[in-house]
Amino acid sequence: MRITALAGGVGGARFLRGLLHHARQSYPLGSDHDQLDLTVIGNTGDDITLFGLRVCPDIDTLLYTLGGGIHEGQGWGRADESHHLAAELAALGAEPQWFTLGDKDFATHVYRSQLLGRGMPLSAVVERLSARWGLAELGVTLLPMTDTPVETHVVVEEQGEQRAIHFQEWWVRHRAELPADRFVVAGLDRATAAPGVLDAIRGADVVILPPSNPVVSIGIILGVPGVRDALRGTRAPVIGVSPLVGGRPVRGHADVCLRTIGVEETSAGVAGLYADFLDGWLVDEDDPIEGRPGLEVVRRPLLMSSVEAAADMAGAALELGLRLRAERAPA
Amino acid sequence: MRITALAGGVGGARFLRGLLHHARQSYPLGSDHDQLDLTVIGNTGDDITLFGLRVCPDIDTLLYTLGGGIHEGQGWGRADESHHLAAELAALGAEPQWFTLGDKDFATHVYRSQLLGRGMPLSAVVERLSARWGLAELGVTLLPMTDTPVETHVVVEEQGEQRAIHFQEWWVRHRAELPADRFVVAGLDRATAAPGVLDAIRGADVVILPPSNPVVSIGIILGVPGVRDALRGTRAPVIGVSPLVGGRPVRGHADVCLRTIGVEETSAGVAGLYADFLDGWLVDEDDPIEGRPGLEVVRRPLLMSSVEAAADMAGAALELGLRLRAERAPA
Repeated sequence: MRITALAGGVGGARFLRGLLHHARQSYPLGSDHDQLDLTVIGNTGDDITLFGLRVCPDIDTLLYTLGGGIHEGQGWGRADESHHLAAELAALGAEPQWFTLGDKDFATHVYRSQLLGRGMPLSAVVERLSARWGLAELGVTLLPMTDTPVETHVVVEEQGEQRAIHFQEWWVRHRAELPADRFVVAGLDRATAAPGVLDAIRGADVVILPPSNPVVSIGIILGVPGVRDALRGTRAPVIGVSPLVGGRPVRGHADVCLRTIGVEETSAGVAGLYADFLDGWLVDEDDPIEGRPGLEVVRRPLLMSSVEAAADMAGAALELGLRLRAERAPA
Repeated sequence: MRITALAGGVGGARFLRGLLHHARQSYPLGSDHDQLDLTVIGNTGDDITLFGLRVCPDIDTLLYTLGGGIHEGQGWGRADESHHLAAELAALGAEPQWFTLGDKDFATHVYRSQLLGRGMPLSAVVERLSARWGLAELGVTLLPMTDTPVETHVVVEEQGEQRAIHFQEWWVRHRAELPADRFVVAGLDRATAAPGVLDAIRGADVVILPPSNPVVSIGIILGVPGVRDALRGTRAPVIGVSPLVGGRPVRGHADVCLRTIGVEETSAGVAGLYADFLDGWLVDEDDPIEGRPGLEVVRRPLLMSSVEAAADMAGAALELGLRLRAERAPA
C-alpha cells in the first residue's frame, strides 16, 4: 500500500506516527496492506541558517518523531537533551538566542551543514539522516519537498513600517503575535521538486494531508512547482485532515496564518485552499461543514492526545482513502 | 613591560599562565613592571577542519588555559565538559571519531566557523574569543600567527609507501607512532603574519619562547614569512625555555619531531634551531649544555607540575630577559 503524505512539523509528525501505529495494529504481517510504503514529503520552507548551520525544523521533527527520538513534551527537539553548546554560544554573545537548539540536535545540524557544504543535495542528506533513525525499517521514505534552498519570510508591520523577517523569528520569537501582512517564500518560484516527490504523489494509492498548517506548511509544499499539478492529476484519492477544531488550531497558529492570507479560519476555509484536488476531508465531530459531490466529509475526534488517538485519526483518514479508491476502481 | 611570546598548545599555555601568576606575585600594583602587556602569538599550523567546522587546537588551549576554562587533567578542552554532540555525530556515522570535541568546545568551533564564513579574518575572531575569556583584563593580547589558513601535514610511510596525513591525525590518532618522513606546512610560504605579530616582536621588551614543541609549534610560527627576521632584528632579548628534560619532552612528542627533521633531541639541538636569534636559554638543572658568547644559559627545574612551578620557570625566563635587556641598554 503506497501512501504519500505532505507534512509540516509537530502536527504532521504526530499524525504520521499515528498512521504507522494504526498500520501495525490493523494490518498484521500476512494480511492485506501489511507492506506499508509511506513516503513523507516534508516542508523545508521554514529552514533557517543559524550560527552558520542549516537547520530544517520540520524535517528534523519528522525524523525524531518517527524515529523515536523526539522530546514528547515539546513535540520538537530531542528527548533527554542538554544545552551546553547553546549556553556557551550565549556566553560568546552569538545571536540569535531565541531559537533553542540542544546538544544532540546540534549534531544533526553540524552533520547536515557539513554534507551540504560538500555539495550534497538536501534530499541525499535527509536519506542519511533517515538511515540513522531507521525509517526504512518502518517502511518510511522521507523526502524534502525540494533541494532548492527556500525560506519563508513574514512581512510584518511595526509602527507603520513593513519589514520582512524569517518565518522562524515570527513564529518562535514573536509567537506569531507580530501583525503579519503576508508571507513571502524566497526561492520557491525557482525551486524544483526533490527527486521522487512528484512520482510519489502520482504513484500513490492514497495521498494524505495531515493536520499540518495549511498556509505555512502544506501551503508551502503546494507552492513547489509541479506539486499541485501532481495532486490534481494523481489517480489516488487525496484525503485531508482538518487542522482546526472548533475554529481554532489544536496547536500552533494556523488561525493567524489563515487570517493573514484572508481565508476564513474554518475547516471549510481550509478545504477551499485544497478545493482543486481534495477528495476526502476528515473534520472534527462538531464541525458544521457539509460534504458536496466530489468531497466526502467524515467526522472524528481530532485531538492527538496520545499515539493511540493519533492512530485512530490516521486510521480514519486512511480507511476513507481506501474506500474512495475502491469506489473509483473499475469494476 | 611588553612581553611577546610564541606559543603552541598545552606546554606554552601552562607556561604563560605561570608567567601571569609570576607577574601578579612579583610586581604588585604600583611597583615597576606592574603593567604587564603580554602578546601571545599562537601557532595555527595544527588547525583542522572537522565536521565542516574550523578547529584551532593551540589557540583554543591558550584561550581556555589563560581564561580559566581549561580541563586541568587533560591540558586541553573545557572543564566540566560533556560529549552529547560527538556521541550523536558518531551515531550518524560522521568521521573522524578520533578527535575528541566536547559540547562547550563545539560552541567555540561553531562560532568561529560562522564568523570565518562571513569573511572575518581569524585574528578578528580570536579577538572576539579573547573577549569572552577576559584576556584583556589579564593584560594579554592573543594573536594567531597568521590569518592565512595553513595546515601542517605529516608525510608518513606505511608498507613502503608515503602519504601525507594531517598533523592532528598523526599526533592524536596515531600518537606520533607512525614513522614520519617529514613535515609539510601547506600554505605557509604564501602566509602573511597576522596584524600586530611582527610589531609585537619588534617592539617587545622581552621575547619569550615557552617550552612548546620546537618543530611543530614554535617551528611553524618561525616559518611565517617575516617572523624569523623580526626575531633576528628585535632589540629585545629573546629567551627560550627548553622543552626537553633529560633528553625527553615533558609532554608531547618533541623528541620524535626532532628526530624526524634530523636534529639531536637535546636542549643543544633545540637551541641550534634558534641559533640566529636566541639570547638566553633556560634549561633543566642537569642539562649538560654550555653557554657561549651571545647565549646565556640558566638552569632551573623545568617541570610544570603546578601553576606555582610554572610561575617559577616563567619568572626565571623573564628575569633572565630583563637582566640581558638591562645589560644591553646604553649606560
